[in-house]
Amino acid sequence: MISPAIFIFFLFLSSSHAAVLDFCVADFNAPDGPAGYSCKKPAKVTVDDFVFSGLGIAGNTSNIIKAAVTPAFAMQFPGVNGLGISLARLDLAAGGVVPFHTHPGGSEVLLVVQGTICAGFVSSSANTVYLKTLKKGDIMVFPQGLLHFQVNSGGSAALAFASFSSPTPGLQITDFALFANNLPTELIATTTFLDVPQIKKLKGVLGGTG
Amino acid sequence: MISPAIFIFFLFLSSSHAAVLDFCVADFNAPDGPAGYSCKKPAKVTVDDFVFSGLGIAGNTSNIIKAAVTPAFAMQFPGVNGLGISLARLDLAAGGVVPFHTHPGGSEVLLVVQGTICAGFVSSSANTVYLKTLKKGDIMVFPQGLLHFQVNSGGSAALAFASFSSPTPGLQITDFALFANNLPTELIATTTFLDVPQIKKLKGVLGGTG
Amino acid sequence: MISPAIFIFFLFLSSSHAAVLDFCVADFNAPDGPAGYSCKKPAKVTVDDFVFSGLGIAGNTSNIIKAAVTPAFAMQFPGVNGLGISLARLDLAAGGVVPFHTHPGGSEVLLVVQGTICAGFVSSSANTVYLKTLKKGDIMVFPQGLLHFQVNSGGSAALAFASFSSPTPGLQITDFALFANNLPTELIATTTFLDVPQIKKLKGVLGGTG
Amino acid sequence: MISPAIFIFFLFLSSSHAAVLDFCVADFNAPDGPAGYSCKKPAKVTVDDFVFSGLGIAGNTSNIIKAAVTPAFAMQFPGVNGLGISLARLDLAAGGVVPFHTHPGGSEVLLVVQGTICAGFVSSSANTVYLKTLKKGDIMVFPQGLLHFQVNSGGSAALAFASFSSPTPGLQITDFALFANNLPTELIATTTFLDVPQIKKLKGVLGGTG
Amino acid sequence: MISPAIFIFFLFLSSSHAAVLDFCVADFNAPDGPAGYSCKKPAKVTVDDFVFSGLGIAGNTSNIIKAAVTPAFAMQFPGVNGLGISLARLDLAAGGVVPFHTHPGGSEVLLVVQGTICAGFVSSSANTVYLKTLKKGDIMVFPQGLLHFQVNSGGSAALAFASFSSPTPGLQITDFALFANNLPTELIATTTFLDVPQIKKLKGVLGGTG
Amino acid sequence: MISPAIFIFFLFLSSSHAAVLDFCVADFNAPDGPAGYSCKKPAKVTVDDFVFSGLGIAGNTSNIIKAAVTPAFAMQFPGVNGLGISLARLDLAAGGVVPFHTHPGGSEVLLVVQGTICAGFVSSSANTVYLKTLKKGDIMVFPQGLLHFQVNSGGSAALAFASFSSPTPGLQITDFALFANNLPTELIATTTFLDVPQIKKLKGVLGGTG
Repeated sequence: MISPAIFIFFLFLSSSHAAVLDFCVADFNAPDGPAGYSCKKPAKVTVDDFVFSGLGIAGNTSNIIKAAVTPAFAMQFPGVNGLGISLARLDLAAGGVVPFHTHPGGSEVLLVVQGTICAGFVSSSANTVYLKTLKKGDIMVFPQGLLHFQVNSGGSAALAFASFSSPTPGLQITDFALFANNLPTELIATTTFLDVPQIKKLKGVLGGTG
Repeated sequence: MISPAIFIFFLFLSSSHAAVLDFCVADFNAPDGPAGYSCKKPAKVTVDDFVFSGLGIAGNTSNIIKAAVTPAFAMQFPGVNGLGISLARLDLAAGGVVPFHTHPGGSEVLLVVQGTICAGFVSSSANTVYLKTLKKGDIMVFPQGLLHFQVNSGGSAALAFASFSSPTPGLQITDFALFANNLPTELIATTTFLDVPQIKKLKGVLGGTG
Repeated sequence: MISPAIFIFFLFLSSSHAAVLDFCVADFNAPDGPAGYSCKKPAKVTVDDFVFSGLGIAGNTSNIIKAAVTPAFAMQFPGVNGLGISLARLDLAAGGVVPFHTHPGGSEVLLVVQGTICAGFVSSSANTVYLKTLKKGDIMVFPQGLLHFQVNSGGSAALAFASFSSPTPGLQITDFALFANNLPTELIATTTFLDVPQIKKLKGVLGGTG
Repeated sequence: MISPAIFIFFLFLSSSHAAVLDFCVADFNAPDGPAGYSCKKPAKVTVDDFVFSGLGIAGNTSNIIKAAVTPAFAMQFPGVNGLGISLARLDLAAGGVVPFHTHPGGSEVLLVVQGTICAGFVSSSANTVYLKTLKKGDIMVFPQGLLHFQVNSGGSAALAFASFSSPTPGLQITDFALFANNLPTELIATTTFLDVPQIKKLKGVLGGTG
Repeated sequence: MISPAIFIFFLFLSSSHAAVLDFCVADFNAPDGPAGYSCKKPAKVTVDDFVFSGLGIAGNTSNIIKAAVTPAFAMQFPGVNGLGISLARLDLAAGGVVPFHTHPGGSEVLLVVQGTICAGFVSSSANTVYLKTLKKGDIMVFPQGLLHFQVNSGGSAALAFASFSSPTPGLQITDFALFANNLPTELIATTTFLDVPQIKKLKGVLGGTG
Repeated sequence: MISPAIFIFFLFLSSSHAAVLDFCVADFNAPDGPAGYSCKKPAKVTVDDFVFSGLGIAGNTSNIIKAAVTPAFAMQFPGVNGLGISLARLDLAAGGVVPFHTHPGGSEVLLVVQGTICAGFVSSSANTVYLKTLKKGDIMVFPQGLLHFQVNSGGSAALAFASFSSPTPGLQITDFALFANNLPTELIATTTFLDVPQIKKLKGVLGGTG
């Protein structure tokens, strides 16, 4: 016999599929669209889709910028798909730099957990510089799409976490956009006012051709 | 051996799939959803997905309205899918008219490139008419969903381009919605106050039945 | 021979696929995404996709809460997919109660069609109670995500309809979230301050384990 | 002395102003913006801002269309401001008609509470008619911006409630947009293909000039 | 004399006011609306509007829950207004608990910086529990509006930061919504199934009346 | 005496204020918010608020880039406020260049009306270059926030119009963001890998200090 309590329990369950949009864990085997990835079937979703441990591991800063960005965007962390949020870890060795870049798809809040970081962004049109040295516990917001950078301004390693207002904020590093592909040198010179030798030098460093 | 520069280059590339949402070129072979068409795989996207040449060709104005609308919506121009924008070309021969219509899915800005166009829209509820004769270089905005029209008010051909705030703004021409389908004449009379002979006349012109 | 009128008719029809986003009737056989279900092919859509008769039937209130909620969300009513709206029917027998719950995905407006209903919601942070007894014809709005309830405060059956600002507003009944699953009793005690016997009693009523 | 419990209570209250955006009851004395009206100060908000009784009163159907629409949009019902939802009451006397119209700002779901209503809408571009006779308890959705109508198709009075996906959906009745203002007759003829006598007749009925 | 370079510089500057919407630092002296607070005049904005140091200070956990939540929402951190993001600091002493709560206005990602936290959320309708013990560096996402909690499951103090997909996510603690206001005891009993003595006990602890 | 027709006319007019959100013409004397400028009172709105003639006038290209951008954003063209769209005129003398830039707030479609323009954009993360020479009538889309440029690649003047998916798309020219303000030279060198003499040279050209 089914008790009244159980009855109502199942009654509400009968609409449970509508709940699929509580969340939409990314299914990378189905098509994606303008709003994000397709959703995994709820029955296949587990708590591990909502948890990510990859930010607990320091990124390798043995590189030219002495820095590493470890993303937990929808691609790495499928639970945030469709939820308007994602994170990334930022490791900056002494002297480390995250060069000028933008996130075309979202705003960022940087949280300094260790060390000292000098960060700044530039407004559009007026080109105003907003510059600040951030200490442990400080947070700073970088509005969507604006050029910004982070520099380790202390003598030792710094650690920070960046939060984004999108599960897929994107990352366009200006130097890589200009010098790490096959954009012709002359065209870069014309569209940046940079001198050709400067362009060739940076293409050499960053692996660009043309 | 991989140089440090190359290392960081690949490091950032490792998150490159997240960048798929820089854009979402329409893939017409996959399902579409409320936010638009599914996205083509980035590896298959070329610059030609972002370029459309169809608006360079004059539409055929040898028709009853002496006008032609050539759309560059997401269906014709897959690169705008998901990006909140699209265009259309408007050719108006002398005496040409784009009859009263709405775009249910977006606002429009009309740019007159050649000739003189009298355009207007009507606000909802208050039914206020906003009417203006536009010359070359003038632009006029028609807010989303409101009835509006364009008439060639000069003696020669006019050319204009319409921009929309949606990749799929839609186009509902009032006359076609009423008279170019199988909506019963009596029902049209009841819901428009138009006389039956008038309705039958326009059904004849526009190919309606019923 | 094709007349000019017919010509323009077909001219505009040539862009008819763009109109698919007039609506996006849910296709439950294709993937869903953060913005909702995939769209049925327009050619397969009929008027019955836009009409739902299930709210004409009283829900079964022979249960513990003497109430029934019959949803017309996107899952039951595929025509509302992507359109930012849905409805539900609420039957309250004498003494009936819709216990404290939230709709994580949308705001609600309740319309009382028969009987008398005492309804209330609580604001976040300030915990202010907004409480009102509603009569036939009254409407009340419950902002998105806030705890609210409805109680039949008259002596006879009440009937109401709820409208939502989302096709998939969700429904989280606090008691079911706490006591109708396998959440360990000790953890519930810790996170609600409720006494263990109280928790065990409600788990018994609502079918929870652990 | 303040007990620990009270302490935490005030601690959370210290962030209570952030909760202002739980809701945004319209303040008609402050500027409005693209997202809606400004918000009343939370301290001045009462439960009556969230309750509206105006839909309990039948509209006056002693008019040319034997119908009345009573809105509970943000202007009449300030509690829905910013919440993506509103309602309206629709009274249709025997023979009553809500003529062809659109809601530029939102989708509609119609709920028939009494009587029989024949309702329909027309898709854009393809001009497909979706037509249905609705009985008590039936609901039908009209996608945003599309032309639609409702006709009392029974022999007695009908009552329905319309829900909208916007607090300010707007209402543009095609006949009023064309014939109830000062739009010149010749321009109407040009942009609708209607005959001049027909236009003059309807201008006479609906109070238009020009 | 103005050089050509300077000329173009001013040329672009002439449109600089349009750039005000790069960001919209909250002005608490002007009205707020559904999209957030009004914007400070750009000329008065300084870098300190984009930086917040309040999360660097441990919250006071000498309270009944041995926990403290320090928000950096738009009210405390005006630079995030309109940008779809905010943060909060979470201090949990040994035995500390953030009781069951929701954020009606946004999704959350929790980042554990120190200690061990057991966290969980419950889906709507299906009432599925997603439960996980999080270690330093782990992140977990809690979808918008769903009930969730955090418990210090280690033997020592824990520290975490929560990121939200809204500058005003709100915070509704279930116990406070039910027991820390003047909601009548009988009504709580009816709408929660809790026993009256249990309700009175918690009202006593949390400062409720009625 | 008021005829029935007039009666219904006034009946609908009684809800006319709700129609204010058909459009929201910018009022620069009231506060702006995250969604745009406040709205002018409808009674003060005229058709001239919806029309802009400034794009009919060629911009002055006697400057360092031999190019001029004339915006019709919400600040110049108040009628587009809140409508998700705006335009700009682009004049390129022979040899003219619009240097690398982004629009943080919107996507762009460029329409070539006269001459030949070589345009390109770079994707984020993968740094793929999408490059095309556009002729009269061609359109090209630049997704939101991505670096792009336009170069006159013909021997004579070129004219183009850019449409944007936002009334306030913003314009951040990389060179101006880096070299036309007081950002310290050393910091630029650190965050761009550019050589100090190159930076100083461009600061000189563009009016930067520091």
